[in-house]
Amino acid sequence: MHRITAASIHGNKKLIELFKKRLPKYTKYCTLTTNPNPLPNDILNTTVNEFNNDGLQRLAKLFPRCEEFPARHIGPREHEQTQMLELLGFRTLDEMTDKAVPAKIRLNKDLEIEEPVGEYELINRIREIAEKNKIWRSYIGMGYNNCCVPHTIMRNIFENPGWTTQYTPYQPEVAQGRLEGLLNYQTMVTDLTGMEVANASLLDEGTAAAEAMSLCHRQTKRWRLFLSDQLHPQTVSVVQTRADSLGLTVELGNVFAADFSNRDVAGVLFQYPDTEGSVHDFSEVVQRAHSNGTLICCATDLLALTLLRPPSEFDVDISVGTSQRFGVPLGYGGPHAGFFACRQSLVRLMPGRMIGVTRDASGHDAYRLALQTREQHIRRDKATSNICTAQALLANMSAMYAVYHGPHGLKEIATRIHNSALLLSAGVRECGNTVINQVFFDTVRISPAMDQGEIQHRARQKQINLRFYPDGTVGVSLDETVRIQDVEDLLWVFGSRLSAEEVAGSCNLNEGSIFLSSFRRTSPYLTHPVFNSYHSETRIVRYMKTLENKDVSLVHSMIPLGSCTMKLNSTTEMLPCSFQHFTDIHPFAPLDQSLGYQQLFEELQQDLCAITGYDRISFQPNSGAQGEYAGLRAIKCYHEACSEGHRNICLIPISAHGTNPASAQMAGMKVEPINVSRDGSIDISHLASKVEKHGKNLACLMITYPSTNGVFEETIADVCQMIHDNGGQVYLDGANMNAQVGLCRPGDYGSDVSHLNLHKTFCIPHGGGGPGMGPIGVKAHLAPFLPTHPVVNPMADMGRHSKSFGVVSAAPFGSSAILPISWAYIKMMGPRGLRKATQVAILNANYMSKRLEGHYKTLFKGQKSSLVAHEFILDVRDFKKTANIEAVDIAKRLMDYGFHAPTMSWPVAGTLMIEPTESEDKEELDRFCDALIYIKQEINDIEEGRMDIRTNPLTMAPHTQAQVISSDWNRPYTREQAAFPAPFVHAETKVWPSVGRIDDIYGDKHLVCTCPPILPAY
Amino acid sequence: MHRITAASIHGNKKLIELFKKRLPKYTKYCTLTTNPNPLPNDILNTTVNEFNNDGLQRLAKLFPRCEEFPARHIGPREHEQTQMLELLGFRTLDEMTDKAVPAKIRLNKDLEIEEPVGEYELINRIREIAEKNKIWRSYIGMGYNNCCVPHTIMRNIFENPGWTTQYTPYQPEVAQGRLEGLLNYQTMVTDLTGMEVANASLLDEGTAAAEAMSLCHRQTKRWRLFLSDQLHPQTVSVVQTRADSLGLTVELGNVFAADFSNRDVAGVLFQYPDTEGSVHDFSEVVQRAHSNGTLICCATDLLALTLLRPPSEFDVDISVGTSQRFGVPLGYGGPHAGFFACRQSLVRLMPGRMIGVTRDASGHDAYRLALQTREQHIRRDKATSNICTAQALLANMSAMYAVYHGPHGLKEIATRIHNSALLLSAGVRECGNTVINQVFFDTVRISPAMDQGEIQHRARQKQINLRFYPDGTVGVSLDETVRIQDVEDLLWVFGSRLSAEEVAGSCNLNEGSIFLSSFRRTSPYLTHPVFNSYHSETRIVRYMKTLENKDVSLVHSMIPLGSCTMKLNSTTEMLPCSFQHFTDIHPFAPLDQSLGYQQLFEELQQDLCAITGYDRISFQPNSGAQGEYAGLRAIKCYHEACSEGHRNICLIPISAHGTNPASAQMAGMKVEPINVSRDGSIDISHLASKVEKHGKNLACLMITYPSTNGVFEETIADVCQMIHDNGGQVYLDGANMNAQVGLCRPGDYGSDVSHLNLHKTFCIPHGGGGPGMGPIGVKAHLAPFLPTHPVVNPMADMGRHSKSFGVVSAAPFGSSAILPISWAYIKMMGPRGLRKATQVAILNANYMSKRLEGHYKTLFKGQKSSLVAHEFILDVRDFKKTANIEAVDIAKRLMDYGFHAPTMSWPVAGTLMIEPTESEDKEELDRFCDALIYIKQEINDIEEGRMDIRTNPLTMAPHTQAQVISSDWNRPYTREQAAFPAPFVHAETKVWPSVGRIDDIYGDKHLVCTCPPILPAY
Repeated sequence: MHRITAASIHGNKKLIELFKKRLPKYTKYCTLTTNPNPLPNDILNTTVNEFNNDGLQRLAKLFPRCEEFPARHIGPREHEQTQMLELLGFRTLDEMTDKAVPAKIRLNKDLEIEEPVGEYELINRIREIAEKNKIWRSYIGMGYNNCCVPHTIMRNIFENPGWTTQYTPYQPEVAQGRLEGLLNYQTMVTDLTGMEVANASLLDEGTAAAEAMSLCHRQTKRWRLFLSDQLHPQTVSVVQTRADSLGLTVELGNVFAADFSNRDVAGVLFQYPDTEGSVHDFSEVVQRAHSNGTLICCATDLLALTLLRPPSEFDVDISVGTSQRFGVPLGYGGPHAGFFACRQSLVRLMPGRMIGVTRDASGHDAYRLALQTREQHIRRDKATSNICTAQALLANMSAMYAVYHGPHGLKEIATRIHNSALLLSAGVRECGNTVINQVFFDTVRISPAMDQGEIQHRARQKQINLRFYPDGTVGVSLDETVRIQDVEDLLWVFGSRLSAEEVAGSCNLNEGSIFLSSFRRTSPYLTHPVFNSYHSETRIVRYMKTLENKDVSLVHSMIPLGSCTMKLNSTTEMLPCSFQHFTDIHPFAPLDQSLGYQQLFEELQQDLCAITGYDRISFQPNSGAQGEYAGLRAIKCYHEACSEGHRNICLIPISAHGTNPASAQMAGMKVEPINVSRDGSIDISHLASKVEKHGKNLACLMITYPSTNGVFEETIADVCQMIHDNGGQVYLDGANMNAQVGLCRPGDYGSDVSHLNLHKTFCIPHGGGGPGMGPIGVKAHLAPFLPTHPVVNPMADMGRHSKSFGVVSAAPFGSSAILPISWAYIKMMGPRGLRKATQVAILNANYMSKRLEGHYKTLFKGQKSSLVAHEFILDVRDFKKTANIEAVDIAKRLMDYGFHAPTMSWPVAGTLMIEPTESEDKEELDRFCDALIYIKQEINDIEEGRMDIRTNPLTMAPHTQAQVISSDWNRPYTREQAAFPAPFVHAETKVWPSVGRIDDIYGDKHLVCTCPPILPAY
Repeated sequence: MHRITAASIHGNKKLIELFKKRLPKYTKYCTLTTNPNPLPNDILNTTVNEFNNDGLQRLAKLFPRCEEFPARHIGPREHEQTQMLELLGFRTLDEMTDKAVPAKIRLNKDLEIEEPVGEYELINRIREIAEKNKIWRSYIGMGYNNCCVPHTIMRNIFENPGWTTQYTPYQPEVAQGRLEGLLNYQTMVTDLTGMEVANASLLDEGTAAAEAMSLCHRQTKRWRLFLSDQLHPQTVSVVQTRADSLGLTVELGNVFAADFSNRDVAGVLFQYPDTEGSVHDFSEVVQRAHSNGTLICCATDLLALTLLRPPSEFDVDISVGTSQRFGVPLGYGGPHAGFFACRQSLVRLMPGRMIGVTRDASGHDAYRLALQTREQHIRRDKATSNICTAQALLANMSAMYAVYHGPHGLKEIATRIHNSALLLSAGVRECGNTVINQVFFDTVRISPAMDQGEIQHRARQKQINLRFYPDGTVGVSLDETVRIQDVEDLLWVFGSRLSAEEVAGSCNLNEGSIFLSSFRRTSPYLTHPVFNSYHSETRIVRYMKTLENKDVSLVHSMIPLGSCTMKLNSTTEMLPCSFQHFTDIHPFAPLDQSLGYQQLFEELQQDLCAITGYDRISFQPNSGAQGEYAGLRAIKCYHEACSEGHRNICLIPISAHGTNPASAQMAGMKVEPINVSRDGSIDISHLASKVEKHGKNLACLMITYPSTNGVFEETIADVCQMIHDNGGQVYLDGANMNAQVGLCRPGDYGSDVSHLNLHKTFCIPHGGGGPGMGPIGVKAHLAPFLPTHPVVNPMADMGRHSKSFGVVSAAPFGSSAILPISWAYIKMMGPRGLRKATQVAILNANYMSKRLEGHYKTLFKGQKSSLVAHEFILDVRDFKKTANIEAVDIAKRLMDYGFHAPTMSWPVAGTLMIEPTESEDKEELDRFCDALIYIKQEINDIEEGRMDIRTNPLTMAPHTQAQVISSDWNRPYTREQAAFPAPFVHAETKVWPSVGRIDDIYGDKHLVCTCPPILPAY
């Protein structure tokens, strides 16, 4: 139904106000012009004199259209929606969703968010907001440094949907490009740190450090940790928070004085160079700790390591840090990639994703995710970590930065920065300040001759941010962007009257020098050809394009990943992420410099609360798993505040994503699984018995809605009630919010807290495996317990009411720089657009399920409605018996049809889960269904003996160019059947897998996690 | 040789000044640190105390590197350059270029341009310049309208090197993507205008109109033109200027009163809607003109035509205009695409490029450039036009805009604009103003109740630009970006006290309405599926990606087009083209709003003068051909001013590009060809005899240097002298400037004028066949004759000294919006970087020529030096006899190796001309040479009978996926030989031709120039 509303008058605020004032007329008008035609051309073309003389009505008629973006975001055209609804036996979307969504929980009004904003107005508005941020020079350091993002990497990776819209590389045959990029990242990290293995990134330095300390605990089974007091404060907080919930004791102190002789310390963590900039020799500490069975973790700086001896030479066990300054903008705290590297002997305990080299069906080298058995989707509450999202896009940018600069270029950059720091420190010493550091790389702590307040004043005059220590000293951290003029401004701030030249001419520049110290690096790094070949822009552009073109992304075809909501990531949403006023601001800049971000957070919070029915949002969790952890910690903290700290049982349906139990375990809860009925819904009686059993100790229920089986369960409100009645809280996993927005609200039907995967429902692209964002929404009673931060407290407005459980991410507001995407999506869709998106998402899923009827069985449907939600599970388990075909064969065969596989074997082993999202149109859905139907015919051919049971297009899939073009083709089916199995698979447009089927077992047996010693194919 | 200079101190101005002051020390320092190593790591790593205490020296040591961009732009690394020089027998680049470039003309000093600016500093600087432009709302109209550029098209086409860096689609097998886009453009133009055929764009509306009038003259052989006085002023000027040089008489007047009865009028040109916005019925005029044998040309507006009866329904013969408002930014005048459509019967006289549908070797539909025999590279001075560059990128953007909106969307946009205009006109009438137009689309001319000055004052208060007519009336032209608030501001400007709502409620909105007039369009348009399928962003992104991925561009491999200089178009150079302060400004905005552009022009002029040795630049010519025409007109005008108007002979070597004679003919000169010796150099004795013969009538010599044969002729200075001695002028074609920059300057050795193909030497990307820019540089004596403009005079500073010959482009400064590219290139390279780029361009060409020795013969080399310049010709003519292989077979076979072909059969039929440019590194050059050597072996195989003479990989090339994957492969060579003919052609990375070899003859016989009636493959 097309409604001409206030919004139709093209976003004119005045008119909207007028409309509101004149509600009676407005209503009358609505009735008058309600029109089922989506493009009311008859109205548009009607001459204006056909209407009565009311100005507002005529104006609405003259400027009839504003909700332009929803029609761009939603795939199926109105007439297609009608056709699809017909097939399902409905006349309207409302009729369908009224049946799909239980009446009890339905939201029967528009969301209370703004009327939709047009794409062009939106850009002006977000630019205005951005420009409220002030871009001063920030020499604050603390793990965040400005850098020169190579423009060609920014444009060709960060701003290129061919790089941003890929899914996590679980299907390696169509993901070799970004897998190669991530392998480069791992190689870069191992080379620079000197460690043996590295993973493909973690969320940030703080969580990487926390993961490192958990690893020490898991490895040593000891319960104490020692943290250096010279770590970044947020690193301490994140580790401390994690340790708390694991029951570990943390000691913070001078690491050189630490005593390990009790042999009860699991791990020690120090920083090199430390947070103040000093470079210390940890050899003795390491030796002492090791001899007492304590593991050594070192937070470090990759750029410093181009000049400094790597931590491996001090014999550390684990190195962590951030690779932000390798070509990723500050972005007010993120997203950036954290890194994690360790000894080979610890590899199976390493958290996060790891890329490995293996071989494909033809025996050629190929890349894939290695050692997945460590991960939470297999190990659940026994996993090495709950980490699910990585920062693939940012890791790829950083790796490409290293590829572009090469070892010589990086060393030059580092040398220039180091020289600036030497110059600065000589200059400030000359005029009576004291530099506290003995040896440093880029950061100095200065005890100023002037009062700190005076320094602060002078710095403000130059629009410079510094680190002001409570004791009156001042930290200055230099970076790649520093020019001589900047050094001179800093000299002035510290009272020097000398120019840089004069300092260089008259002062001693040796003090603090790495080159004169024993820390000077002598070992080589980045010697692999990939880091020594792409130094001209022409070459790097071609390299990036070669990698991009190996991968399937949303620019090619639908990626129907169940529970992952691979919807449109529109350009308008993405544009603000490149705005300088969003990218170039330090997360610890004074709040009066980040007013734009504060406004963005506030507006997005309001919208997300309106959508979810919650009262408060914390933006700190920078992944869904972080959100789960934070939400569960808030629940735990709430119980403690209610003097019910004993409540520690977390009920989780067995169909839940593995991250749920892993997070619960990390949050210090005990997981009790709840059974699922044969129809896929939660087993209410089993739940009731568990609730009864654990009654007093019940902390919470953790549930996904609609269920991971793709069904709106009728009982959800009752279930929530049951938990509340027993003193528990409800954690609702927001992974499936895309089936709810505008139709029902978790906060209304009984949930207390949810994380919101902004990278699913709210349009942040997946980036080939991150960044994600997992802010949590909570009801008011949980708000006091939301995450805080040691430097910039995001809960400052709550004052003394804040009783936060701690800190989950390094940055106060998580990956702030990608929040404009979700903000823009909501603003452009408006209340009706969002609702309709949800409805079409449900329509698309049901349409596909219906079209596949007779070919495949949809495993679960709503009991009353016989409808699925926004996703559905195809049961293909029988084919194993009838044709020796498994889900994986169908998944790989889909690649030959140009498609990415759906979710495989989750939540039910041996099945495929499909989520089309609202952004795919009927033509694409039909093509995908046709592909599945063709595949079903191929299965029939096997069942009925027309096709060989061992050598057939399914078991041999996917087919590469090399295979089908080979002269010695000797398979019992044709090349055309292999490569062009449907009329819509054309030679001119086909997207090929670049390798044949991956041999996972070989790879796990022969673990290689750095670039193999051959120049990558190009 | 790496020199540590002032510039090394990272662009710090103060230090550079200091350096200059301290020249003696500086020199000493230079000597001290001169270091042959390009990356002086030994210096970087040396501890600072090893040096003496001079501050500046130490500072230079501490911050050693600024010329970062040249090393990104230039492909070969220093060690590769050394290897390549060795092969050629040289130790240094200087040694080589001293031999290659005749001593007599060598520039033996640095170019007088600024020291190089780093990539990051540059962006800050250009942003500051851009922000000097003021972005007011411009309702000036006159052929330029603001529009909403779809962000996804901006990002995925305009900002995507996969779309911007392609060459002109002369090799259709690897260009099907943009050919399809351009065919969509032609279909869009024919549908909206109702004409039968359209071309793939011209430079702008003014030149399209001029081309239309020339066509009338060629067709009718009549010598008079009639122009309506209601055309845009710049259209009149451009037509008038062209007519002048062709000897045509132009009458400007009321077209309804025109008298054709003398039967001597070749064509009449009017505008619909006209420049004032009025829509008139031309039926009677057309009937009267036609009955007297006069052709009818109509300038029109594609968006208006979504509501208005198309010109075809008035029976016009030719329609022209601009498609700028279809999704292309204003950009201060360009680049945008002009369109040209006509009757089928005139198609063979149509200027510019045209896409046609034909079939490939397998009989499948395929696109290619049609009817090339019309064009100047074949017909020379008999060509239909000198037009060579089109505006392919912008035409593709506009076509994609139509694809994205579809017919309904376009109609909605047009309706909204029309409604705004109705509302505005009703409102201004209400308060006592008079609207002059009877029926209008988006533009009205108002006779205001207030004084014009008062209107001007009020408009300024609202930051609104209007069109102020000399008679006190005011023009207002509305566009897609207009919102109700804008209409209300305009109402206020004209003294209305009513709100939009009040106007809508109380005023008559019928007056002026198209819908109530006989002009209302009833015929359908854009009915082809391509305009009705891609309306969601997901779909349009995939469509754009599908097209992009069919085409070879610089993101894949080198495109060694002789004379076309396909070098790196770096991201840093491209970024400013998207700055709002460059994109959103009207070309006729008051000069005090375009101070940023003025500064850019001034700085670029200074740099180009320093590079060429000229004294003044005109940026008006928006293509090389336009530059030629403008330069020759300036020469002619100069002769006339010297009372030597009889001088009209233009000498042109027969090896010249066909555009040269075509331009000379258009400029009203008589072309006399000069022979070329067997060694490729100009035949001096023939030249001398021609000079003597034409002595008194000699207007100029038009010459390319280094010659089109790829050789630095020793005699160039003498030749220039000879021409001057005989009263002639020298026009030096700037196509080969890439061999000269920093080494020699045309202005020094005797040339008087050159056009500079900024899209070759100065890094503007080719855009798949445009935009280009062809500004001309002249010596001071020619400056008074440079192009002027009727609205904004670019020569205003010359005052009364300006004696311009006229106007060549619609916009005063041509395609201003792409000038930041060339500006940035020069600024980032600096004097030494530019020189080195030229040297490496010459090195690369000579290296390739050397590597191919023994396999292929390089046709021409310098007589003394035995070196080529920056390009060279491979003579492959013998293979026709020995193996029945022609240049085209080699060109097509190169596609199988992943390469775009070099220039084919120009300047010598049956040869290949290769220009590698400096941006390609040794590895890529080697790969290309290897491909050619493999091909030579294949030719040997044919010659020696090992390969069939008819069916072999060369004659059957290029090979498509469909061919090599077909089951019935029956060729006498293997599939692998076909598809993977060299070890470096990998299945995983191969770029495939999307169709087989094109059948040009079939296409020209069966001319189809609109989308064929089948949905394009996707």
